[in-house]
Amino acid sequence: MSKIQQLQAYLKENQYDAAFITTPDNVFYFTNFKSNPHERLLGVMVFQEAEPFLICPKMEVPDAANSGWSQEIVGHLDTDNPWNLVAQATQSRGITLSNLAIEKSHLTVERLESLQEIYPQANFVRLDDKLNEMRVIKDEVEIEKLRKAAQLADYAIEVGCKEIAEGKTEIEILAAIETAVQAKGCKMSFETMVLSGPKTASPHGTPGDRQIQKGDMILFDLGVIYEGYCSDITRTVAYGEPTEAQKEIYNTVRKANENAIAAVKPGIRAMELDKIARETITDAGYGEYFTHRLGHGLGISVHEFPSVTGTNELELKTGMVFTIEPGVYKSDITGVRIEDDVVVTENGVEVLTKFTKDLIIL
Amino acid sequence: MSKIQQLQAYLKENQYDAAFITTPDNVFYFTNFKSNPHERLLGVMVFQEAEPFLICPKMEVPDAANSGWSQEIVGHLDTDNPWNLVAQATQSRGITLSNLAIEKSHLTVERLESLQEIYPQANFVRLDDKLNEMRVIKDEVEIEKLRKAAQLADYAIEVGCKEIAEGKTEIEILAAIETAVQAKGCKMSFETMVLSGPKTASPHGTPGDRQIQKGDMILFDLGVIYEGYCSDITRTVAYGEPTEAQKEIYNTVRKANENAIAAVKPGIRAMELDKIARETITDAGYGEYFTHRLGHGLGISVHEFPSVTGTNELELKTGMVFTIEPGVYKSDITGVRIEDDVVVTENGVEVLTKFTKDLIIL
Repeated sequence: MSKIQQLQAYLKENQYDAAFITTPDNVFYFTNFKSNPHERLLGVMVFQEAEPFLICPKMEVPDAANSGWSQEIVGHLDTDNPWNLVAQATQSRGITLSNLAIEKSHLTVERLESLQEIYPQANFVRLDDKLNEMRVIKDEVEIEKLRKAAQLADYAIEVGCKEIAEGKTEIEILAAIETAVQAKGCKMSFETMVLSGPKTASPHGTPGDRQIQKGDMILFDLGVIYEGYCSDITRTVAYGEPTEAQKEIYNTVRKANENAIAAVKPGIRAMELDKIARETITDAGYGEYFTHRLGHGLGISVHEFPSVTGTNELELKTGMVFTIEPGVYKSDITGVRIEDDVVVTENGVEVLTKFTKDLIIL
Repeated sequence: MSKIQQLQAYLKENQYDAAFITTPDNVFYFTNFKSNPHERLLGVMVFQEAEPFLICPKMEVPDAANSGWSQEIVGHLDTDNPWNLVAQATQSRGITLSNLAIEKSHLTVERLESLQEIYPQANFVRLDDKLNEMRVIKDEVEIEKLRKAAQLADYAIEVGCKEIAEGKTEIEILAAIETAVQAKGCKMSFETMVLSGPKTASPHGTPGDRQIQKGDMILFDLGVIYEGYCSDITRTVAYGEPTEAQKEIYNTVRKANENAIAAVKPGIRAMELDKIARETITDAGYGEYFTHRLGHGLGISVHEFPSVTGTNELELKTGMVFTIEPGVYKSDITGVRIEDDVVVTENGVEVLTKFTKDLIIL
């Protein structure tokens, strides 16, 4: 059953007349058309049985057709009211909508108001959970793309390590990494992070013109997109011999990462993984310096379901893919984060990112 | 009057109790704190008189404080319900909200439902137009940042032209441009576009491993962020002598760009600029190949108000900044787009991007 057919079966089951999907990543999931329309309308309308249609800016119609979407494409000019075109395409199928499923966690209030205008009789129901449920389980084709994306991330870390040298700036190292990835025909999945010295202690810091010096620890957090699927890796390395205090933090974070990974298998709850990593870090005395969740789902989006937090009771299932990324951020010693991408398999876990977790001393 | 004070005056005038702002760019505008919180809640709540507060992920509280926001910062952990913290911070000020202004074009339906839960008695009104009205007029400090961002964009085009050589791929040229910009400590404002040969005819094409060859035209579309403000430039150059048909399209697009720029002044309507450029192109016989609006506003966001379309009746005012980017996309000849960033001044126009529009033949 294709993804569209799965969605149609869900609509029938719940007596929803249609689903209107406007998140670019979800549109890609159903149509294979990847586009960032900015403020312009991009959407796919899926009915129980009638032919679905894609609506996109007119100038992108050829790209949409080339990406493999063989059903109707409605192009809109900047001077069109795209909502009228949506209404017409629905009417032309002889359909009146009573229940329309929408992405409440993405659709804006303004767009909801536009839909209310063109479908005044419709009730709007939440589609998000069904889409998450579909996307959270990756099939073998998707996992293979994620494997390739992770290999590219490993490669990018390798490039980063080779670039480290006295006096080089964070930005220079970052640029070398991105150039190497681009030379392979790929893009980064988010803004590459290269942080050095005390800056490693900021979980969301910004690379700058700080120059690398002996004694620095250096944190890389980066990811690569392969055929629409994202990887996300973090490694922390040392430039020159680290202090005992730095090594202790490194080993604690590594143990937290490895303990959590070892526990991954179908049936365990997401929150249990977070707990295992957090206990490892707390037992070592750094609990208060692990200030974020353990991880996040990964796929078409670099942050997607499931969220691996201390409160998510979700039971893991085969085919789920997410990051495991404990960190300790102690500004007087160092920040360390170690992040891998993992797939839940029938037998346990496959770790997609393979770059060594031994502490590299350059 | 500070930006917060201007917003407070607006709230009083309209008897709105508060404004809740969650778009990262608008949060930056009011707080100087730039952050991409992904799915986590980031917001600033501004009351008529009580102290405003910023809510952000707990791990970003130090960054928020360092960026210059000196009023209350509420940090939330991934295990918190951030809406309860928003409710508490409001209650602690002794305020009950009857009218809350929100960004309807950005706030999601889900977040609206969360606000409805914590403020069950509130009516939700549209804040977007006021924010657009404030942001659309740039002050001298902002214009100076945009000038610098445009200088960096000129520089990036210069780098791109120097990189063009037989057999190099689009991605290689792109990487050289981005490396040069990063070496200046800056980031691109959107994904850099380098398209060659027939690919120039796709207005939103993706750079790839196509190799440059003699006879190609090459289109660069890129921008740089300087202190939070974006530039956006497009130039199309020739590698080897272009054909007469290519030159004709180039000259037509250039004339459209220049005619529109010459008409910029306070009081003219946005739609008139679009009309001037479109007539130039239509008169030359290429009207059907100019498939998008003339331009878009530019500032903290790379696409913001005003939209320069054939239907926008907005009268231009001093301090507005936007792009002028006519294009002709004829797949059997070439695509050409020429884009500049302009500021409306008291006397007419200042063009921020200064890279030559003479047809460069490399």
